[in-house]
Amino acid sequence: MKIPVGILGATGAVGQRFVQLLSDHPWFEVAEVAASDRSAGKPYGQACTWRLPGAPPAAVGSLTVKTTEGPFEAKLLFSGLDSSVAGDVETALAAKGHAVVSNSRNHRMDADVPLLIPEINPDHVAALDIQRKKTGGGYIVTNPNCSVVGLAMALAPFQKAIGIEAVAVVTLQALSGAGYPGVASLDVADNVIPFIGGGEEEKIETEPLKILGDFVGGAFRPAEIQISASVHRVAVSDGHTMAAFLRLARKISADEARRLLADFRGEPQARKLPFAPARPIHVLDESDRPQPRLDRDREHGMAVSVGRVREADGHFHLKLEALVHNTIRGAAGAAILNAELLTERGLLP
Amino acid sequence: MKIPVGILGATGAVGQRFVQLLSDHPWFEVAEVAASDRSAGKPYGQACTWRLPGAPPAAVGSLTVKTTEGPFEAKLLFSGLDSSVAGDVETALAAKGHAVVSNSRNHRMDADVPLLIPEINPDHVAALDIQRKKTGGGYIVTNPNCSVVGLAMALAPFQKAIGIEAVAVVTLQALSGAGYPGVASLDVADNVIPFIGGGEEEKIETEPLKILGDFVGGAFRPAEIQISASVHRVAVSDGHTMAAFLRLARKISADEARRLLADFRGEPQARKLPFAPARPIHVLDESDRPQPRLDRDREHGMAVSVGRVREADGHFHLKLEALVHNTIRGAAGAAILNAELLTERGLLP
Amino acid sequence: MKIPVGILGATGAVGQRFVQLLSDHPWFEVAEVAASDRSAGKPYGQACTWRLPGAPPAAVGSLTVKTTEGPFEAKLLFSGLDSSVAGDVETALAAKGHAVVSNSRNHRMDADVPLLIPEINPDHVAALDIQRKKTGGGYIVTNPNCSVVGLAMALAPFQKAIGIEAVAVVTLQALSGAGYPGVASLDVADNVIPFIGGGEEEKIETEPLKILGDFVGGAFRPAEIQISASVHRVAVSDGHTMAAFLRLARKISADEARRLLADFRGEPQARKLPFAPARPIHVLDESDRPQPRLDRDREHGMAVSVGRVREADGHFHLKLEALVHNTIRGAAGAAILNAELLTERGLLP
Amino acid sequence: MKIPVGILGATGAVGQRFVQLLSDHPWFEVAEVAASDRSAGKPYGQACTWRLPGAPPAAVGSLTVKTTEGPFEAKLLFSGLDSSVAGDVETALAAKGHAVVSNSRNHRMDADVPLLIPEINPDHVAALDIQRKKTGGGYIVTNPNCSVVGLAMALAPFQKAIGIEAVAVVTLQALSGAGYPGVASLDVADNVIPFIGGGEEEKIETEPLKILGDFVGGAFRPAEIQISASVHRVAVSDGHTMAAFLRLARKISADEARRLLADFRGEPQARKLPFAPARPIHVLDESDRPQPRLDRDREHGMAVSVGRVREADGHFHLKLEALVHNTIRGAAGAAILNAELLTERGLLP
Repeated sequence: MKIPVGILGATGAVGQRFVQLLSDHPWFEVAEVAASDRSAGKPYGQACTWRLPGAPPAAVGSLTVKTTEGPFEAKLLFSGLDSSVAGDVETALAAKGHAVVSNSRNHRMDADVPLLIPEINPDHVAALDIQRKKTGGGYIVTNPNCSVVGLAMALAPFQKAIGIEAVAVVTLQALSGAGYPGVASLDVADNVIPFIGGGEEEKIETEPLKILGDFVGGAFRPAEIQISASVHRVAVSDGHTMAAFLRLARKISADEARRLLADFRGEPQARKLPFAPARPIHVLDESDRPQPRLDRDREHGMAVSVGRVREADGHFHLKLEALVHNTIRGAAGAAILNAELLTERGLLP
Repeated sequence: MKIPVGILGATGAVGQRFVQLLSDHPWFEVAEVAASDRSAGKPYGQACTWRLPGAPPAAVGSLTVKTTEGPFEAKLLFSGLDSSVAGDVETALAAKGHAVVSNSRNHRMDADVPLLIPEINPDHVAALDIQRKKTGGGYIVTNPNCSVVGLAMALAPFQKAIGIEAVAVVTLQALSGAGYPGVASLDVADNVIPFIGGGEEEKIETEPLKILGDFVGGAFRPAEIQISASVHRVAVSDGHTMAAFLRLARKISADEARRLLADFRGEPQARKLPFAPARPIHVLDESDRPQPRLDRDREHGMAVSVGRVREADGHFHLKLEALVHNTIRGAAGAAILNAELLTERGLLP
Repeated sequence: MKIPVGILGATGAVGQRFVQLLSDHPWFEVAEVAASDRSAGKPYGQACTWRLPGAPPAAVGSLTVKTTEGPFEAKLLFSGLDSSVAGDVETALAAKGHAVVSNSRNHRMDADVPLLIPEINPDHVAALDIQRKKTGGGYIVTNPNCSVVGLAMALAPFQKAIGIEAVAVVTLQALSGAGYPGVASLDVADNVIPFIGGGEEEKIETEPLKILGDFVGGAFRPAEIQISASVHRVAVSDGHTMAAFLRLARKISADEARRLLADFRGEPQARKLPFAPARPIHVLDESDRPQPRLDRDREHGMAVSVGRVREADGHFHLKLEALVHNTIRGAAGAAILNAELLTERGLLP
Repeated sequence: MKIPVGILGATGAVGQRFVQLLSDHPWFEVAEVAASDRSAGKPYGQACTWRLPGAPPAAVGSLTVKTTEGPFEAKLLFSGLDSSVAGDVETALAAKGHAVVSNSRNHRMDADVPLLIPEINPDHVAALDIQRKKTGGGYIVTNPNCSVVGLAMALAPFQKAIGIEAVAVVTLQALSGAGYPGVASLDVADNVIPFIGGGEEEKIETEPLKILGDFVGGAFRPAEIQISASVHRVAVSDGHTMAAFLRLARKISADEARRLLADFRGEPQARKLPFAPARPIHVLDESDRPQPRLDRDREHGMAVSVGRVREADGHFHLKLEALVHNTIRGAAGAAILNAELLTERGLLP
């Protein structure tokens, strides 16, 4: 007997990834799908213009789309809602007793909401106690911005082992990160756009601090790292690339850095969660990797690739490139791994 | 009567840009073209597979290609030679009395060769005296790596007015920077390559120091700035984009920074050299500029565009994006402007 | 004293091309700009998000945008209106006495509206008499669909000299043909879309018949050619490529075909109209041309390039590739050339 | 016990696909790899610059690369050799008793070599008798050019049920079809190339005739269809798109055409061969499909997608779009399916 789950925002870009990734999940089964009023009442297969390769799974295609007001029978709800509506909808559903595992940005920085990467800060689920006291059982758990997953994963081994003082990071982000229709093709044809709306740089500069920080005494205490970001949209379908410069608490060699990255493991690996990559970070030694087209799908898109780990002269200690599949490890897959952690820890309502 | 000039490596990517840009030059006229032995003896129009839009100018198309050994009647020679051969060829031609204005990297860091950006360090031509004492009149003058032109131009106003301590810079470089055939299309299709061969990062970390430094007491004294670079190839035809983080000698506001950039002028503007842009730096205020496709051709590709000038919290003072047309201001056009400066200063042999 | 002109739909993709192309026109001067109610009342420079390289001409940037209801002082109005509104607006303005030179599709097939390519069917302006009898002086003149300009130009020499029975044509159309925002970047990233909305195939199958036909006895008599089209959107910024198979009234050699194309001239060339290309068709002999990036800008984008002219075995007589700059010769430039013909023939109101 | 197989040209683009696709094959196991003298003697993992996503299978990575002269223990050899060497090498290996299942073009049109698509002309294997009489047991079997697989599959149902008189076909071919390094990135950036070397159009015009013809009385009798082709390279990584116009022996409706395509099955489906797609042709009803990015991977890249099946007015009866994954169903996967057919029919030496 699989656990029935619902998907909020199921017809959108992230919602479609949820449907795709959950189609063969060993624990979860998509039992309910919800979207805007325009789609509600139609079979999912009709309401949704499927933009992933192939066609949607038949079992989901025949589900009738609900509105986001529900009611939902599934206790576990994945949210790929647009941030224009996610805030209130998710709060309301948590209040009704649901576990809302959300990819939306609205509640990420809330004082009682874990911003979770299970390999890095699984103990932040302790914050759920605060929520559950208010709701009687429901809660919201979030995963970070798509770029942040790649960055935080590449930083975590250094933060844990050595300490990080400052980071400068430049992103080259894929088109799918903007949802659909997202970026106009004319805007990226033979072009690069040095800007992404929605406060992207601010998210990259703040979310990792919560993730790499502690939850102590009932409150989040952010890590003290100075992160400065500069973001770009490039003509790549999937896969965010990041070039990062790291200033650490002390100098280390490139070899030691590679070892720290390659050896990094966390609770998902220990528990062998279904969506856990065997190695969360793939360290690539070739001089020209990682590359989105060649590396984004490592471990079904759940591994972060890090390459070009080299010592930086002068102001920084290390330079490296990180790559994350933005709609899998950076969005829907991240949420699914969060839900698996919650399940395994016995935290589902 | 125009000044006759020769082009070395005339059938290559940079050589073709020289031919194109010089086709209507008010002072210079292409009188001789030279290339590898394979092309020598053929009319240029046959020897060269023209890869720029349209067709080569008829007057150049009928010139017979020489070998790089010459002899050349033109005193002024532009070099777009591949670095595998440029070193010795350029030395030999300078020894024969030619002014070799080169885009190749071989002699850029030589102790008596100016690495010239006429708006920034025109006085570095004083180093020619050393060369001319050896050769009796001939010399080599170089322009920087294509990315460096954009970076150095964006740094110069700050270095002159305030002083720069450290720079982290990430490049997103165009395909034309790799020459022809350059990058395989499969390698950049739906992809980004976080690497460029030929010591690209090292060039970006060292060339600006010579350019922004002084020539005193018969020797170059490099600027003391710590530059750290991370380079990428992206699927853009022309136009290198750079994201830079600047740590200055003191904090300044974004407005002051924009003013310093916008007000920047140099000798080419004062002398109204033919290839001099009216404004060497175009400061763009839109939140999503500069962009290669929209901004690379400003002032016929000779202006550098700088945008997103903003204050950086913490470790750096400023963040900005710079864009340079890599085969015009970053290569052939840079050399032509150098030659114009030499002409106007009466330094042609 | 230049002739004042107005531009309808001036903030859109075609409207911006009108503004750009007319900025230095020897006869015409942009005196009025009109757009939707949302833009009306603002200076053009503010109302318009300029998406062409550089910035809009300062003189136009300061014009206050009007609604499409006018009133307009300019007798000559260029229309780049969206087809959802062009029909009624253009009719109303013609009724008020304006010469409306339109790129919109709405009136192209009207019984009294010339669908004009000045090199091919300048005598179709005779149809204006019918319109002027109704309006007292105003009228509408249209140019064809962007692909049709390229196709009709490539067909005209054969239709005039020999006669064409049937054509199969496949288009590979640029992104700018869809306007802005047009095609979502995710839809064309690493992709081809074998479809274009708005009846594109039907337009390609019917508009050339009107253009290549006659206007006799007060009515259009379409050419009798069977055209079958299959259209595609490809990831190219500007320039529509077409592969055509031609069945003629009799077999001709590829050499004769090339000669017919290369020798083709019309009234714009005879009258030396400002926007007339010296050679309306550039015949390219290289085996791999025409190509959008290399050939779209021939004669400022006003020449059509035709290459790979070869004999087809069996069912067809000829195969060839045609290329047209879709927003210049295929849209705004086409309309400007139409207006120049009208001016020179003394047909302006 | 799996059947050991060798791969000729194993380090090339097609060779790498063989290695990838065979890594989990239920019947075959890669036991030997061969490449040029430059690679011979090295472990495959070192000799080969792997250009597919991820990394090569470890078991193959440790095999020592042989020269193409062998000797080989495997009876079954897959050939992805470049056509510059494939001709003689394959002949020599067949003479030594090997079954050479080749993707190379050299022997495709030989009088005793089957040009095989198992769904269409499995009985052409009868030609092997002629070869085996000469060699004593070895033979060569070929699969068609990558585009031809897609075209022949789309034509076969009509040829079998109705008869085809003439076809005009325009291809939009992917970059991977040119091997590596193949097309220079500058040549396809913001561009389309209306040409492919190596006699591509001639192959498309002739190979389908052999495939759709008969093998009777010990000789191939080609189908009598007039095919005319026009080819293009577009900036797509994988997946050849084809727009075809069909003139049939009689008119049929679009619905009947779709039914013929959708119902098409062959021996691979009847025998349930491991690489056989359940449905060799996926008929897509959406107005804008097939698309390379969304449809090339249907049934692991082994199904051909056909869409936009519509009636053509006039000269042709039908228009349609076909899509084939050029390096899977159009190359390595095609050869593997051929080998499966040979195995199942007991034809391996």
